[in-house]
Amino acid sequence: MEAVKCLSGGASLEANAESVLRTITPSLDPTRHKGQAGKIAVIGGCREYTGAPYFAAISALKIGADLSHVFCTEGAATVIKSYSPELIVHPILEESYNISGVNDEGKRDISKKILSEFDKWMERFDCLVVGPGLGRDPFLLECVSKIMTRARQSNVPIVVDGDGLFLVTNSIELVSGYRLAVLTPNVNEYKRLVQKVLGCDVNDQNTHGELLSLSKQIGNVTILRKGKSDLISDGEKVQSVSIYGSTRRCGGQGDILSGSVAVFLFWARQCNSAAERESTISRTNPAVLGCIAGSALLRKAAALAFEHKKRSTLTTDIIEHLGQSLEAISLAS
Amino acid sequence: MEAVKCLSGGASLEANAESVLRTITPSLDPTRHKGQAGKIAVIGGCREYTGAPYFAAISALKIGADLSHVFCTEGAATVIKSYSPELIVHPILEESYNISGVNDEGKRDISKKILSEFDKWMERFDCLVVGPGLGRDPFLLECVSKIMTRARQSNVPIVVDGDGLFLVTNSIELVSGYRLAVLTPNVNEYKRLVQKVLGCDVNDQNTHGELLSLSKQIGNVTILRKGKSDLISDGEKVQSVSIYGSTRRCGGQGDILSGSVAVFLFWARQCNSAAERESTISRTNPAVLGCIAGSALLRKAAALAFEHKKRSTLTTDIIEHLGQSLEAISLAS
Repeated sequence: MEAVKCLSGGASLEANAESVLRTITPSLDPTRHKGQAGKIAVIGGCREYTGAPYFAAISALKIGADLSHVFCTEGAATVIKSYSPELIVHPILEESYNISGVNDEGKRDISKKILSEFDKWMERFDCLVVGPGLGRDPFLLECVSKIMTRARQSNVPIVVDGDGLFLVTNSIELVSGYRLAVLTPNVNEYKRLVQKVLGCDVNDQNTHGELLSLSKQIGNVTILRKGKSDLISDGEKVQSVSIYGSTRRCGGQGDILSGSVAVFLFWARQCNSAAERESTISRTNPAVLGCIAGSALLRKAAALAFEHKKRSTLTTDIIEHLGQSLEAISLAS
Repeated sequence: MEAVKCLSGGASLEANAESVLRTITPSLDPTRHKGQAGKIAVIGGCREYTGAPYFAAISALKIGADLSHVFCTEGAATVIKSYSPELIVHPILEESYNISGVNDEGKRDISKKILSEFDKWMERFDCLVVGPGLGRDPFLLECVSKIMTRARQSNVPIVVDGDGLFLVTNSIELVSGYRLAVLTPNVNEYKRLVQKVLGCDVNDQNTHGELLSLSKQIGNVTILRKGKSDLISDGEKVQSVSIYGSTRRCGGQGDILSGSVAVFLFWARQCNSAAERESTISRTNPAVLGCIAGSALLRKAAALAFEHKKRSTLTTDIIEHLGQSLEAISLAS
């Protein structure tokens, strides 16, 4: 596939992102039934955050997933449900402030119950997004670590963003060596990751080499470093996506990206398994393809929304342009 | 009525679905008062699901019912009310997790109270929809079984979908022999129904014969088997609806269908009782007519929504096209 031509080593090549997106997007076939285009679950939503998990989950649906779930705390659930009847929201997570009177044994029981409720669903999911609006409560993060471990045991891909990256940066073994994990750090999250994993500060003179080393050091986990150009690497090579984009930096765009990458990663896996063994696509890491397509789609939608709303553009405006952007990219060739 | 020509036995004929829809839709008459175009109740909405009962209930209104009620748990009620001020939402159902400290006698009291609250309303309803977002909690399902039994005693028609089908598949006596019951299984729900009732796996070589047998075995209950073509049978014959439709399989479309079938079933009954004894319509099962019309309308609305939103189409987009679809079908002849 021409779309994924690139240089290995330190240099990077702009990915033919639109071609990647077109190649991995499944055809809409009347014989397919509900669920086959993707079942995504977002783990996030706590006392403080409800918008982020909603943005990630609704974006997955707008791109073409069939079902989108959110696992969050009870208080967050009521609000997230009320944003949209399209989502399935599970109020199962707990935060310390809510169980402050409970002793250690009680907490272990609560943790077990959370895990068993999640287990009932996990095998159905094609990809998890861990982190949007997750918060940093220690008890909650401990439960989410266990959820990630279970997902990994079942080979369910995991896209990690936001507070999920805080968790993973401090417990890198959660994703280390897992080829179906994707990290999508912004500038600050990337800085912490480099400090923790490589033990040094970010070196702007060696952007590509550093990203390659970081990915390799975490066992070839795919990293999407968000920026003016998005840089993507699984430790083998670095690719960039620079097309489109907007100069508006309103919060929430990273949540659209994580939900998008989840869907495209699943589609790339489907495509990968359907493709002939010798084709380029079967040799290309689906996590990398998912990042390239997700990055291109968000950048296109952000550009279109900005054309209409300028400085006033919000994340919901960008989400409203996901469908049109997908269509525009799909039709152009 | 030409619209319901069909072959008996194993073969099926495409129903003239648009003609059925036009024939059973009541005229808008200034002398009629609130309620005469239909009072529908949806039984569903629990800890996890709030979108599904909303989709079913709001669809009933958008098609032309006058009043649409939802019976659900307290937590779900707050959210469902927030989706729309058009619905009347009764927070009367209970789930096990919420009454875990209650003993058996206490649970019997709660169950009695739920039933007596429902009884106050039941006689007013023209059709129930049991299942959208019902969940699978054993205590809740036990209460819903009793509600179904009461509705049956009062000759209130019942459309069963989603987790209502889970309940009915395990307790087939709830609907067995009830000519005013409609089951609307998707591919997986149909599979479980066939396994349980016919004791075998689905046979794709004998689709029509199998559907006929299944319906007969449940005492001529009407079954709408959803798929690329929707197949409808009351054990006498099989009819199909294949017009329109979309290739998008986002979750929630089944909820639109169940709400639609409920309204059309009621209208077909009204029409049936108003028609002359010897007319074709008075000899046609209103449950079958309701399924044909509901299927056609959903397929038309899904097609229209898809024209606009393509892969990004969600269930709310389809609901927004119900009115226009109804109008288009009503005007064409």
